[in-house]
Amino acid sequence: MAVYTEVPDDEMAAFVASYGIGELLSVKGIAEGVSNSNFLLHTSKAFYILTLYEERVDIADLPFFIGLMEHLAARGLICPQPVKALNGSAVGRLAGRPAAIVTFLDGLSVRRPNVTHCAELGRGLALLHQAGADFPMERANSLSVPDWRPLAERAGAAADTVSPGLANRIMAEIETHERSWPQDLPRGVIHADLFPNNVFFIKDRLSGLIDFYFACTDAFAYDLAICLNSWCFEADASFNLTKGQAMLAGYESVRRLEEAEVAALPALCRGSALRFLLTRLVDWLNVPPGAFVKPLDPLEYDRKLAFHQRVSDSREYGLRR
Amino acid sequence: MAVYTEVPDDEMAAFVASYGIGELLSVKGIAEGVSNSNFLLHTSKAFYILTLYEERVDIADLPFFIGLMEHLAARGLICPQPVKALNGSAVGRLAGRPAAIVTFLDGLSVRRPNVTHCAELGRGLALLHQAGADFPMERANSLSVPDWRPLAERAGAAADTVSPGLANRIMAEIETHERSWPQDLPRGVIHADLFPNNVFFIKDRLSGLIDFYFACTDAFAYDLAICLNSWCFEADASFNLTKGQAMLAGYESVRRLEEAEVAALPALCRGSALRFLLTRLVDWLNVPPGAFVKPLDPLEYDRKLAFHQRVSDSREYGLRR
Repeated sequence: MAVYTEVPDDEMAAFVASYGIGELLSVKGIAEGVSNSNFLLHTSKAFYILTLYEERVDIADLPFFIGLMEHLAARGLICPQPVKALNGSAVGRLAGRPAAIVTFLDGLSVRRPNVTHCAELGRGLALLHQAGADFPMERANSLSVPDWRPLAERAGAAADTVSPGLANRIMAEIETHERSWPQDLPRGVIHADLFPNNVFFIKDRLSGLIDFYFACTDAFAYDLAICLNSWCFEADASFNLTKGQAMLAGYESVRRLEEAEVAALPALCRGSALRFLLTRLVDWLNVPPGAFVKPLDPLEYDRKLAFHQRVSDSREYGLRR
Repeated sequence: MAVYTEVPDDEMAAFVASYGIGELLSVKGIAEGVSNSNFLLHTSKAFYILTLYEERVDIADLPFFIGLMEHLAARGLICPQPVKALNGSAVGRLAGRPAAIVTFLDGLSVRRPNVTHCAELGRGLALLHQAGADFPMERANSLSVPDWRPLAERAGAAADTVSPGLANRIMAEIETHERSWPQDLPRGVIHADLFPNNVFFIKDRLSGLIDFYFACTDAFAYDLAICLNSWCFEADASFNLTKGQAMLAGYESVRRLEEAEVAALPALCRGSALRFLLTRLVDWLNVPPGAFVKPLDPLEYDRKLAFHQRVSDSREYGLRR
């Protein structure tokens, strides 16, 4: 949760007036997203979300994120739709920060996804990959294999204060992936952070995807690996095979995985578990004093990683071939 | 800003279903209020605010607060209107806390009120006092003269770490009011916390009053004194007489002050400045580690108090008689 930036009302009203979306009637700072400030706006026309991009988002990436949401929404994917200002631009400036207004999306994120949610998510992820297939922009994944060693070095020996031996476990895992990371898989736009809090449901039906600020160009199956990690484990880090089956079947009902992707899935699951272990570890070791945001437990992903290290075949994730 | 309590979605959905206000479509934790958790709900019928009452609100007082909002809304005052559950109760339980749902109110709170806002506020305050006149319940003001000495004792000598001599200044002021606090003034329901953040405007017109959780039975003119303190000073603690004139004229356009109230106004302004100085001082000296809420500066009210101590006549606040 986070509202980092306070915006004086006159500035807010002037900003909204530059969009032609009606008269501003209400502004509420909302607890959504961890790296940006978000406000729910009510105007005489509709409800909108205003996002102020804080330092964690690189301004140079905004055209990719905004363009992607426009592209996906135009192809029928339910995601926030950027609203252009009267001057034609979808990115403005407010309170000294880049800012954008998107349409308000109904839906509830589930804290404990069930099998139906996992099936819906799998299908929605494949639809996202399809809808993004002809998106012309590219953005490298800035949290992939080459970025893991620098992250591990930022954590350094302090990793062992979180769990004995963690620094060594991480380094061995990095070396494995640096040697043998799957190459030449089908690729395109991936969400790269499609955790349950970024997916909306209404009555067990997927009703929208949000928070595209980690989206990038990478292997589709890596996105699926991220979702297997974030949707199909129980609270005790045990893997729920029924949920894995549902997610993979949901995905393949829209887009069938190629043989190379099937073969790569265990390595991709290990790698994506490592990616979240590393970023959570660095955040955990660097909580600023007085921080609003409670850091997420890195060891959740250490336990998931241990599960993946024992997997030798994608059928163990529930793939039915 | 504050969202203190996280509510699992299934509990939230079950709670909302007990109200007959349609299907729950969206929940956003919002940054509103400092002592409760607030959520903006969207259902298939409308938008609502759900409040979870945290420990600062005494559960025994809830029937007064809820009943008051119902009473005021029924008399045409624009304020949140409590929604009754299907079982007829306006106070339920959610996540182990008392909880209530009220209607969503449009409007923007102004950070720097201008003369027009002060005039509107004065009028709105008098309308509130009129609308509450026949409200049958009573609630003592728990932050009035008898409560100031215990607050000063909680701050103790640490007050002087905030400003040299502050402990003595406070004690002298308390003794003055304990000797000569105005008695037998016209009384009824007062809001007791009608700061700019609790008042909504749309295009310079007052559009609603919120946050009745300090409301109590006390002198009407004390409420006016609180508003003179919170609306009519500039950032440097200088008093803006034009704003004072506008607020008092706005108030008297609805309800004319009696002579005793006019005479008592300087003492009431001093007392209400002291009340906010004391509660802010105690909060300032007792910020819990990792607190979400940045404490408000107590010395703002030390400076306002110094202004009031030099006032001898209500005309100095802008009263035109």
